[in-house]
Amino acid sequence: MDIMDDTAEPVHPHGDHRRSHHSDKFKSELITRLNRIEGQIRGIKGMIERDTYCDHVLNQISAAQAALNGVGKLLLAGHMRSCVVERIREGDPDVIDELLATVNKLLK
Amino acid sequence: MDIMDDTAEPVHPHGDHRRSHHSDKFKSELITRLNRIEGQIRGIKGMIERDTYCDHVLNQISAAQAALNGVGKLLLAGHMRSCVVERIREGDPDVIDELLATVNKLLK
Amino acid sequence: MDIMDDTAEPVHPHGDHRRSHHSDKFKSELITRLNRIEGQIRGIKGMIERDTYCDHVLNQISAAQAALNGVGKLLLAGHMRSCVVERIREGDPDVIDELLATVNKLLK
Amino acid sequence: MDIMDDTAEPVHPHGDHRRSHHSDKFKSELITRLNRIEGQIRGIKGMIERDTYCDHVLNQISAAQAALNGVGKLLLAGHMRSCVVERIREGDPDVIDELLATVNKLLK
Repeated sequence: MDIMDDTAEPVHPHGDHRRSHHSDKFKSELITRLNRIEGQIRGIKGMIERDTYCDHVLNQISAAQAALNGVGKLLLAGHMRSCVVERIREGDPDVIDELLATVNKLLK
Repeated sequence: MDIMDDTAEPVHPHGDHRRSHHSDKFKSELITRLNRIEGQIRGIKGMIERDTYCDHVLNQISAAQAALNGVGKLLLAGHMRSCVVERIREGDPDVIDELLATVNKLLK
Repeated sequence: MDIMDDTAEPVHPHGDHRRSHHSDKFKSELITRLNRIEGQIRGIKGMIERDTYCDHVLNQISAAQAALNGVGKLLLAGHMRSCVVERIREGDPDVIDELLATVNKLLK
Repeated sequence: MDIMDDTAEPVHPHGDHRRSHHSDKFKSELITRLNRIEGQIRGIKGMIERDTYCDHVLNQISAAQAALNGVGKLLLAGHMRSCVVERIREGDPDVIDELLATVNKLLK
């Protein structure tokens, strides 16, 4: 369900023809942060393989969670400032339900 | 601060001589989950590069957060059942403070 | 800072002249939930006064947190469906920043 | 399920005979914080009745959530320092499972 490979695009009733339109600078900021998170995850794996004391590993997990939250907030901000505002102006009736479902998932 | 490479071990006042002692089965379960999370992070990067609609990307970020929470809970359980119980029985006075600091970080 | 009394209205640079315009049914749903949460908080106080075993009290705190999250999500939905959509249509430039600041606080 | 009145004690397979044994000072700190939270909840109800702009209400909900989290962390610390340590020393086999279930609820 939450497993994904690098090529498949999720199928979505309303949105699969939509594209985001972020600036290259914004995309590059997101990629940089995601690269760092990927490094953190790899580092956590290495710690487990080397039997690092769990408390250290748990602290690295907290750090990776905080970094991933940061990416989520940044992308949510970009999404709301561009796509959401635009679709509300166009009178699209589904955008708020979609946004609420997504924010509620982020709120857990 | 939360940047880490694959080799350096964090320095910790009390704990840097400590090692975890999880079963191979438990370690392999953690590694499997972390591999999947690494794939999710790489997938999210690919989605941003291909301008996938942000709402889809945000949903993948929620899924990766949930998966990382799952690893955190699993490791916390393993930590408490082994190291924490053992150190309390040995009368180690620092273990509860260390555990509370770590749980509070996971609780954000 | 987060202390408030029952009468004072918060002062807000842009928003202190604004009013929400929810239906009586929606308001009554929110009030009912908040009454229940108030009862939960009072119940937790009573448990502490009677030296109830902490694990029970912690579970009641989790239940009250979940109930308060529920009110937050419900109100956020009402807010986005009414005020936010309306202000975006009116071309109000501040509404997204205000909403993002609020969602980020709810996301902690 | 999460509804409670002021008198009934929750029934718990292992723990209903247990009592917490916190100092009066600690209990009074918790009660003071819970009184403040009760006031916050009452304040939020009043805001909704007076049609206060939702964004202000959402910010007060975030503040009440943070205050309730604070009580949860404080009580968890008290619980771990006293009951949990004691029961581990007594060799009680259930204490860690109980604690993990509770921490996982607090972690959502």
